[in-house]
Amino acid sequence: MSENKASNRMWGGRFASGPDAVMEAINASIGFDKKLYAQDIRGSLAHAAMLAQTGIISAEDERKIAHGLNTILSEIEAGTFEFSAKLEDIHMNVEARLAELIGPAAGRLHTARSRNDQVALDFRLWVKEELQRVDAALGGLLEAFLVRAEEHAATVMPGFTHLQTAQPVTFGHHLMAYVEMFGRDRSRVRDAIDRLDECPLGAAALAGTGFPVDRHMTAKALGFREPTRNSIDTVSDRDFALEFLSVAAICATHLSRLAEEIVVWSTPQFGFVRLSDAFSTGSSIMPQKKNPDAAELIRAKTGRINGGLVGLLTVMKGLPLAYSKDMQEDKEAIFDAAETLDLMLAAMTGMVGDLEVNSRAMRKAAGSGFSTATDLADWLVREASLPFREAHHVTGRAVALAEERKCGLEKLPLDDLKAIHPAVTDGVYSVLSVMNSVKSRTSYGGTAPAEVRRQIRAWRKRLKADATAMKRR
Amino acid sequence: MSENKASNRMWGGRFASGPDAVMEAINASIGFDKKLYAQDIRGSLAHAAMLAQTGIISAEDERKIAHGLNTILSEIEAGTFEFSAKLEDIHMNVEARLAELIGPAAGRLHTARSRNDQVALDFRLWVKEELQRVDAALGGLLEAFLVRAEEHAATVMPGFTHLQTAQPVTFGHHLMAYVEMFGRDRSRVRDAIDRLDECPLGAAALAGTGFPVDRHMTAKALGFREPTRNSIDTVSDRDFALEFLSVAAICATHLSRLAEEIVVWSTPQFGFVRLSDAFSTGSSIMPQKKNPDAAELIRAKTGRINGGLVGLLTVMKGLPLAYSKDMQEDKEAIFDAAETLDLMLAAMTGMVGDLEVNSRAMRKAAGSGFSTATDLADWLVREASLPFREAHHVTGRAVALAEERKCGLEKLPLDDLKAIHPAVTDGVYSVLSVMNSVKSRTSYGGTAPAEVRRQIRAWRKRLKADATAMKRR
Amino acid sequence: MSENKASNRMWGGRFASGPDAVMEAINASIGFDKKLYAQDIRGSLAHAAMLAQTGIISAEDERKIAHGLNTILSEIEAGTFEFSAKLEDIHMNVEARLAELIGPAAGRLHTARSRNDQVALDFRLWVKEELQRVDAALGGLLEAFLVRAEEHAATVMPGFTHLQTAQPVTFGHHLMAYVEMFGRDRSRVRDAIDRLDECPLGAAALAGTGFPVDRHMTAKALGFREPTRNSIDTVSDRDFALEFLSVAAICATHLSRLAEEIVVWSTPQFGFVRLSDAFSTGSSIMPQKKNPDAAELIRAKTGRINGGLVGLLTVMKGLPLAYSKDMQEDKEAIFDAAETLDLMLAAMTGMVGDLEVNSRAMRKAAGSGFSTATDLADWLVREASLPFREAHHVTGRAVALAEERKCGLEKLPLDDLKAIHPAVTDGVYSVLSVMNSVKSRTSYGGTAPAEVRRQIRAWRKRLKADATAMKRR
Amino acid sequence: MSENKASNRMWGGRFASGPDAVMEAINASIGFDKKLYAQDIRGSLAHAAMLAQTGIISAEDERKIAHGLNTILSEIEAGTFEFSAKLEDIHMNVEARLAELIGPAAGRLHTARSRNDQVALDFRLWVKEELQRVDAALGGLLEAFLVRAEEHAATVMPGFTHLQTAQPVTFGHHLMAYVEMFGRDRSRVRDAIDRLDECPLGAAALAGTGFPVDRHMTAKALGFREPTRNSIDTVSDRDFALEFLSVAAICATHLSRLAEEIVVWSTPQFGFVRLSDAFSTGSSIMPQKKNPDAAELIRAKTGRINGGLVGLLTVMKGLPLAYSKDMQEDKEAIFDAAETLDLMLAAMTGMVGDLEVNSRAMRKAAGSGFSTATDLADWLVREASLPFREAHHVTGRAVALAEERKCGLEKLPLDDLKAIHPAVTDGVYSVLSVMNSVKSRTSYGGTAPAEVRRQIRAWRKRLKADATAMKRR
Repeated sequence: MSENKASNRMWGGRFASGPDAVMEAINASIGFDKKLYAQDIRGSLAHAAMLAQTGIISAEDERKIAHGLNTILSEIEAGTFEFSAKLEDIHMNVEARLAELIGPAAGRLHTARSRNDQVALDFRLWVKEELQRVDAALGGLLEAFLVRAEEHAATVMPGFTHLQTAQPVTFGHHLMAYVEMFGRDRSRVRDAIDRLDECPLGAAALAGTGFPVDRHMTAKALGFREPTRNSIDTVSDRDFALEFLSVAAICATHLSRLAEEIVVWSTPQFGFVRLSDAFSTGSSIMPQKKNPDAAELIRAKTGRINGGLVGLLTVMKGLPLAYSKDMQEDKEAIFDAAETLDLMLAAMTGMVGDLEVNSRAMRKAAGSGFSTATDLADWLVREASLPFREAHHVTGRAVALAEERKCGLEKLPLDDLKAIHPAVTDGVYSVLSVMNSVKSRTSYGGTAPAEVRRQIRAWRKRLKADATAMKRR
Repeated sequence: MSENKASNRMWGGRFASGPDAVMEAINASIGFDKKLYAQDIRGSLAHAAMLAQTGIISAEDERKIAHGLNTILSEIEAGTFEFSAKLEDIHMNVEARLAELIGPAAGRLHTARSRNDQVALDFRLWVKEELQRVDAALGGLLEAFLVRAEEHAATVMPGFTHLQTAQPVTFGHHLMAYVEMFGRDRSRVRDAIDRLDECPLGAAALAGTGFPVDRHMTAKALGFREPTRNSIDTVSDRDFALEFLSVAAICATHLSRLAEEIVVWSTPQFGFVRLSDAFSTGSSIMPQKKNPDAAELIRAKTGRINGGLVGLLTVMKGLPLAYSKDMQEDKEAIFDAAETLDLMLAAMTGMVGDLEVNSRAMRKAAGSGFSTATDLADWLVREASLPFREAHHVTGRAVALAEERKCGLEKLPLDDLKAIHPAVTDGVYSVLSVMNSVKSRTSYGGTAPAEVRRQIRAWRKRLKADATAMKRR
Repeated sequence: MSENKASNRMWGGRFASGPDAVMEAINASIGFDKKLYAQDIRGSLAHAAMLAQTGIISAEDERKIAHGLNTILSEIEAGTFEFSAKLEDIHMNVEARLAELIGPAAGRLHTARSRNDQVALDFRLWVKEELQRVDAALGGLLEAFLVRAEEHAATVMPGFTHLQTAQPVTFGHHLMAYVEMFGRDRSRVRDAIDRLDECPLGAAALAGTGFPVDRHMTAKALGFREPTRNSIDTVSDRDFALEFLSVAAICATHLSRLAEEIVVWSTPQFGFVRLSDAFSTGSSIMPQKKNPDAAELIRAKTGRINGGLVGLLTVMKGLPLAYSKDMQEDKEAIFDAAETLDLMLAAMTGMVGDLEVNSRAMRKAAGSGFSTATDLADWLVREASLPFREAHHVTGRAVALAEERKCGLEKLPLDDLKAIHPAVTDGVYSVLSVMNSVKSRTSYGGTAPAEVRRQIRAWRKRLKADATAMKRR
Repeated sequence: MSENKASNRMWGGRFASGPDAVMEAINASIGFDKKLYAQDIRGSLAHAAMLAQTGIISAEDERKIAHGLNTILSEIEAGTFEFSAKLEDIHMNVEARLAELIGPAAGRLHTARSRNDQVALDFRLWVKEELQRVDAALGGLLEAFLVRAEEHAATVMPGFTHLQTAQPVTFGHHLMAYVEMFGRDRSRVRDAIDRLDECPLGAAALAGTGFPVDRHMTAKALGFREPTRNSIDTVSDRDFALEFLSVAAICATHLSRLAEEIVVWSTPQFGFVRLSDAFSTGSSIMPQKKNPDAAELIRAKTGRINGGLVGLLTVMKGLPLAYSKDMQEDKEAIFDAAETLDLMLAAMTGMVGDLEVNSRAMRKAAGSGFSTATDLADWLVREASLPFREAHHVTGRAVALAEERKCGLEKLPLDDLKAIHPAVTDGVYSVLSVMNSVKSRTSYGGTAPAEVRRQIRAWRKRLKADATAMKRR
């Protein structure tokens, strides 16, 4: 009863009756937005300092407010703070406690500020920090790939298209493909940070304020490049959340591709890799099983992040300006996607570092399936001057013969090859071996071990530059 | 350390090292699947009874197992049970505790069963119960609509197309449109229950079992129509979860449409309805505001359910049979969507019952915007035998004239109407009033108050029949 | 210029200027809704017959209208009809041509009807017919599975969980899992047909009509069970489209799972199946490749159908009643999803019928990976009365030993097994063979060949009953 | 028959039978990828020039190839080229025609190239050009906003939160919020261009090539910054398509928000704006209607773009490297989303430029609903030194009184205000007028007309700089 009144009091004296239980259940966000407590208090401290600096509140009030907020921060971190659903959200919980601690001065903190710009600030700070976490996690994952790629720069495996053996490549080269993907993810993360790096504080409810605030001061104090430029947009905008989710969805897609490969490579049929016990589990009924659970879960969690993206796009579709309560649905989608992505990146980094590679099985598979057929065709073009399409047809006939004989291309006698096309000479056998095939592909970005090592060196340099650039921000 | 060993012991003696911390974080499901405790224990009780009945275990063992399981149930409900993440999931947590309580007999419970059919059972039972909850909630919402529709069977409001005034309708008729929508939702819910009403128990890991189990017995004991028909499908299938999500997404879409209308109708510009204090909130900075928060949140939460559907569709896409760990991602999507839908339905039922309708504002709006133009056109067809298209053009000219004069159609002098078309007579004025317009639309399903009341009566009968049908299941 | 006027004339005399080119591009639907021509004309014929029957128009007018409409139908089917984007949509194109053909009587066809109920009818008829096509296609696919399942009722393959060998199953049993899935899809299709089987005609713009129409008559003439019950819902409702898309998305998910399996099974590493030339393609540069393109495309097209579902859910979210132009976006989503699903089903039916199965490779794989470990554990429970969990640990140690020795479980000497647990006897070897394992799993729905054959017989009976039920509609 | 053979010949001599009709239907992409003809030919010209320059083919061959390709380009643009579904895709259609035109030299064009890098190139070029089109369209839309914002920098309207009147703002300020949104969209577009600006040519099938190609030369010739760095990634990557779709989805979300506002503002109840005839339509049965069709369609088409994004994310999820046929599903999703977005932007630019603003209605609405309550509260803080929360409560009581009296806050007699709080003085009336309220909000980014004009000037400068930056690329 008295709690109801407390709750109503928040909204002014106008409400005759308290919110229904179901209303409280659907309306209260404290269950999840308490995650923003540190950002909320940090923002309030900066706001109070600015209010005092500009003379909007007294230095004495600011001192009290700062002391009270720091006390609350300690209480929350010590686990002694009591959150109340009646007080709806983190902002009101902090504010109510501040009033208890310091009395009327607490009321001055809300001068020239509204819950609309306050929540926009807290959430933006949180997303920015999460993007920085993802940036660091991607850095770790990229390092892990470089280590393994170097180790396997000359380990031959089948390069697949359509999951069929196409041409031999090196495992190091294959891993470097993921370096490119996660490298793009990282650049998307940094673009997203740059784009959201504007401070909402001072937009107030939606129209700005008549108090002589200094928005550049709070922006700087909170580590933003500058204040936002339009107060209505400031409280209506959740682009930074949508952009985080879309960046996360693309990154998750990359993770899911490697996860799928690990699942396939771990089958007894492929046997290319073996997961450590740390990243696999057993079965309750089939004791011999070693299941790639971590890879499967990474693959699956992609769905969850895609779902979060769809969810928030759906929420924001057709929403009139400025703030609508619909936007409260932004937080859980982001928190869940962030936690999920962090976990996926950590698990994948562990698996990449840990993976036991069966080079023998890879090499054997690379040599089967007539994987050097293209090399034969290329030889015919280069050495016998056949137009590519004709070389292609000659090769097709050679493959058919080898298949019939159940042997590799390199085992076909020269006479049989000559019978298919008279221009074939003994020199052809030099390109039919898997290792020669791989070594020959020296084009920029190609699979030749020397070229793969060059790619690795270039990436090490770039990662170093990336780390420096991040620090300078 | 010893906990690690405990965890490894679960999987058999083969694992040398314990799972990494990140692996535990990504792998453990106990954080959410403990929600299934009641279903898990219920399923185990039925399984044990069947094992005893068929002589696979002794009556004595069954007695011990049943006693142990009931003890665990009490512990969980009393909040004294200690869940452990090391023991991964609800099944292992219950099993480990059972072993502590009753010793070796606990080990016999897993005979002819695997975690795969066990989790399929628990989850299917949970989804079935949730569908029954939704069925009941829809029943309550439909009742609420019928009460308000009856009350407003003759309350005139503008019928909108493109959110422009089109023709007058009654508010009761408008509400009955939602009765049709939620009625379809309910029939989808019941179809979904029928389709999932098969018991997975006995499929074991994926191949069935050689123990002489009686799957019909457990099916019956657990309230299912019959056992599933193919053991591989049984452990691979999550259709019931996908179907729940798609049914929920369509239902949420309906809720979002009414929510949008409530938001628009609550604006001062429309002023058609006023929300009670129980379903609106105030603003921290604008004391005069009365915000339709519950409606906005319902509208927004549609995104969340759509996201859950996309998430699980993405998880299941391209998943080889039978069980893969990916499927562990099914539960949180469903739990979240279920909780969300339950809340949306409860809040909407409250709002519908509570809504204060401003009949005067509705009637006034219904009379503006030349809303009876169609009636004029129809009159010209009926009384003056004009082809519809010509009548349409005549009406257009009359509207243009009324717009120019800034008056309603019914205020245009007869001479002016005759100047537009000579066939117009004095009789035309009888169809130009809003009430006459509404009353005239007596076609089956039309907006005439008498017809709306007939619709309400028919639905009352149907709801009664639906309630009986549900009880008979 | 004169075309512009023509276009404006449609909307009445009120518009001063013609629509912009971009407006025409965004607004006109004739580019896709001409697909509805047959449904549109069928609906108009039924409407005209009813108007004549109820005396709303004369018999003479109806005769002219029917003749004109049949002429138009012939013209469209002969490809001589000229569609015009100025006339926006199929309804206006037909109506304008009808006016050319029969003069003023054409204008009477629109009596007691609006484009809103007309398009609702046309589209609903189209979706109903598509659902019937899908029903038939699913019937064909199910037949194809039954034929192959019977052929391979005793073909042993590894049953996978986590894509790791778990226990031996039969290929027939595996195929029957898909019969269950597509069987559920078919029941969803039929539920969807039942739910949409209501005729929109007579709802007019949104309020019903004052003309003495007979909605039951048109419903019957057009093959619907009954007329819709609420005119506002009738023109606002697109549930039937959403339900089609969600049914299609679940069905596509099933198709994608089998497609993934076919891709994996076709790798040289698995070699379980070989696609016919008809369902695979070669490579332009690697002549030896045989790529499972059809399977890959089926797998991929799942995304397209999910996208269509998300698209329409997003369109309908928060849309006020009754008709809004947003709903014009329903058609392309449905047409594309329908064409896609039809193609996926046809291609999969072809592939299932065509697949060359390598039973030898399957059997060999089934015997590796200690696939009968569970059988050993079950034997220990059954014959040596070990609690299941203990049996599990004993089995784990046996597997570890066999792995160390690089042999199968059945090759471990009895003494070694006895050393692991003294209760082991010679009888154990009878359950360690793959064929015995499969044969033993005779539980209802299990993988024993006899049980699989029973499942097949039951399904043949059900398909016959399904065919009869469909015909009776 | 002979066409079948033609088709098989493409894949080499190994296929015994032709592809099924259904296979052709599911497999052929020529129906949509012919859209890439210009990119395909441009890429081939650059490739041939490089092959000649590096001595891989003769200058004579290159001359023939270039001539042939230019002939084909003319044929396609003249509409005389015959596309064949048997030849599957645009690449094969062009290649086959080239062989007809120039004979064996055509076969040399495919040297050191595969369909995999060829299609990656064509598609990337197309997406890059589309992004440039969107960049230009966004530029046009931003200009349109600036013009209207300047015109309405001092036009007062209600600022909404929860679609309830919150505080007065200016219409110019509201429009500038959209400038921020579309400005962010444009920066996302440019980041996407930068990220995809790498040339795939030379990656060949997946492994690179042994021919001494010069990848930097082709990259430069085709306007790319540099060649891609890893050949496996090059043919596996569709990030550029996913990023385009996610950028498009966020942009579409912004468009949908303004579209929703236009729909709401166009209602007779709001009456804030009036659409020109060019962007609205009439009704076939309700001649008085003026429907905001273009706005509704823009709002709806958001769903289509979201659907395309979900579709491609689903396609790419869990796809093993390198190329899989699944990736053929990328094109239609992108083509449709691109066409849709282009249309949405064009229609919105037209509507923004065309919108007739009813300033009177806006001003009147801005003054109702106690919109200056916050100003009163702020006054109490500033002038009477009340803590904000107390000022809030005092204001709440004043609003309640005004509501009771059915008057505006500015009409409450001073005595009544003093009775609520004694600190109120005559000076308070200066802040209770709507115009004073707006003028007072001079904080950076606030709604004061002077500040809005400053925002406009800053944006004009930025647009100029953006245009220059784009040209320099």
